[in-house]
Amino acid sequence: MSIRLFITGGTFDKEYDEIHGKLYFKDTHLPEMLKLGRCRADVKVRTLMMVDSLEMTEADRELILANCRRAHEERIVITHGTDTMEDTARMLGAAITNKTVVLTGAMVPYAFGSSDGLFNLGSAISLAQCLPHGVYIAMNGRFFTWNDVQKNRALGVFEARHRAESRGPDPHG
Amino acid sequence: MSIRLFITGGTFDKEYDEIHGKLYFKDTHLPEMLKLGRCRADVKVRTLMMVDSLEMTEADRELILANCRRAHEERIVITHGTDTMEDTARMLGAAITNKTVVLTGAMVPYAFGSSDGLFNLGSAISLAQCLPHGVYIAMNGRFFTWNDVQKNRALGVFEARHRAESRGPDPHG
Amino acid sequence: MSIRLFITGGTFDKEYDEIHGKLYFKDTHLPEMLKLGRCRADVKVRTLMMVDSLEMTEADRELILANCRRAHEERIVITHGTDTMEDTARMLGAAITNKTVVLTGAMVPYAFGSSDGLFNLGSAISLAQCLPHGVYIAMNGRFFTWNDVQKNRALGVFEARHRAESRGPDPHG
Amino acid sequence: MSIRLFITGGTFDKEYDEIHGKLYFKDTHLPEMLKLGRCRADVKVRTLMMVDSLEMTEADRELILANCRRAHEERIVITHGTDTMEDTARMLGAAITNKTVVLTGAMVPYAFGSSDGLFNLGSAISLAQCLPHGVYIAMNGRFFTWNDVQKNRALGVFEARHRAESRGPDPHG
Repeated sequence: MSIRLFITGGTFDKEYDEIHGKLYFKDTHLPEMLKLGRCRADVKVRTLMMVDSLEMTEADRELILANCRRAHEERIVITHGTDTMEDTARMLGAAITNKTVVLTGAMVPYAFGSSDGLFNLGSAISLAQCLPHGVYIAMNGRFFTWNDVQKNRALGVFEARHRAESRGPDPHG
Repeated sequence: MSIRLFITGGTFDKEYDEIHGKLYFKDTHLPEMLKLGRCRADVKVRTLMMVDSLEMTEADRELILANCRRAHEERIVITHGTDTMEDTARMLGAAITNKTVVLTGAMVPYAFGSSDGLFNLGSAISLAQCLPHGVYIAMNGRFFTWNDVQKNRALGVFEARHRAESRGPDPHG
Repeated sequence: MSIRLFITGGTFDKEYDEIHGKLYFKDTHLPEMLKLGRCRADVKVRTLMMVDSLEMTEADRELILANCRRAHEERIVITHGTDTMEDTARMLGAAITNKTVVLTGAMVPYAFGSSDGLFNLGSAISLAQCLPHGVYIAMNGRFFTWNDVQKNRALGVFEARHRAESRGPDPHG
Repeated sequence: MSIRLFITGGTFDKEYDEIHGKLYFKDTHLPEMLKLGRCRADVKVRTLMMVDSLEMTEADRELILANCRRAHEERIVITHGTDTMEDTARMLGAAITNKTVVLTGAMVPYAFGSSDGLFNLGSAISLAQCLPHGVYIAMNGRFFTWNDVQKNRALGVFEARHRAESRGPDPHG
């Protein structure tokens, strides 16, 4: 079973610029991460863009969608910045129903050594192989469907939209 | 959804003894790995033993089975040495049909920095949440059912038993 | 022989803020680094400040000088941001002649895993024990006296001022 | 100032064999470590052997001595297993008086991520540049002359022989 891995950038792939002391994008770390994980799944990697997801445009999202549609593989993993991951998931989820697409990301750049990226990549590649067709977000040991997920920006955590709402004041209370 | 994580040792948890220059077991790294992965799944950890899987006895396997049966959780992950992982999977697979049990391990100790363990742990925790009841091995981006898996010792890779057999000489050739 | 280690911040101690995706200061990593290096030298650590050296004020430098003067130890290491390390070295060098003071830093935060910090710390602690009284900068396997050093900002490298000047156009050429 | 770096193996360069779960030697990590330390000193690397120092023979030591004598550089660093480092230091110390030779090693393999090797390498390269002619051992933030050093095998620590002896029962007590 082949898996297509589309790279779009995000925290996953941020680097430290030694000269200017800033974070930036250079090359993707995904092939190195697959090697570190001794990944034996048949994963084909293609970089679509290398952007901070806060700077992702509608044209960028259209490009991602077009690539998902065009892919021969039925199983797709997309690495993505966490800030607008739910937006891309929603857009893809409304359009793609005949493939399994799993978006994942990282809270800490892989290059920093103490990243959750490798853990999340293992999750996403596994989920892409066994979840039914649809679009999902896999982060930090949990996964969500595209129409029931949001990033809690205060905590830096993804959570179900439904469950989050139901935590509000109980009208029957 | 709660996940029970049983620790049995294996390469996952080997340490380097600075005084004697040998590998040994001390404490498990699993809680640290869950923290590194920023794991938000509800994972409850219990150490059953800390052994090299080559030294695992039938009594050890009975203990693992008893704990799987006794667990309140329907979703179970077991960390295990790779050398006899398929034996434990077979024994559990014949006995447990009402829970999802995923065995995983590592080719390189987590303490060595360049381990596949975090990747595999992400896989196992995700698969435990979405695979149907049964016993599985999840390693290096792939997963196998308990009755169709073997470790290729020459390559250090898990593979389907069926597929491996079918690679043999073709009787109709 | 006791060594006093004064911490002032700098790249050495920058952290990654997962929520905002920015670099910031929290606690110093120096005790952890000494532990990682299995340091058996008698090093006493004190944090004086946690600042980016571009934001270091004259008052900050006066505080560093006062602490160097007041220290009972004859051997002092100072961790410092690289951007103005030469300024602090010059100020201390003009004032302190009865102690050995070695400034060091890092081009990459220690928290990023691939840092030069541990290498530089090993250098600085060793040099503090064997260089004659005076003020020095130790970075990336080389060391310089306070009045003959500058940071080449384009390359991110420290170099001797004298040698750098002599590389200019030769008036006798 | 050129520094000659001779590699002889030792814990520094041990690797983990994924197939057999044992430690072994493959290629040296020293060039990678110099790169990680952003080392700007002019270091020329040559591998003389890749052995566990417990298996080092007199012929091996003669080879090391011959290479030290033959080297054009006045400053030499030798990476060496810690178990017999003091023996090699003694043999070299009795023979070489016109160069500065610093032996160093690691308590934990570099490949394990949590190694003291980078710290020790920073020390050794710095000490080689500023210590007077003679033979030294640099480990874990301390350094010793060839005729006053021993490894405390119980603690895994190098210490001065003289000081260790003087810790014995006091005849005037």
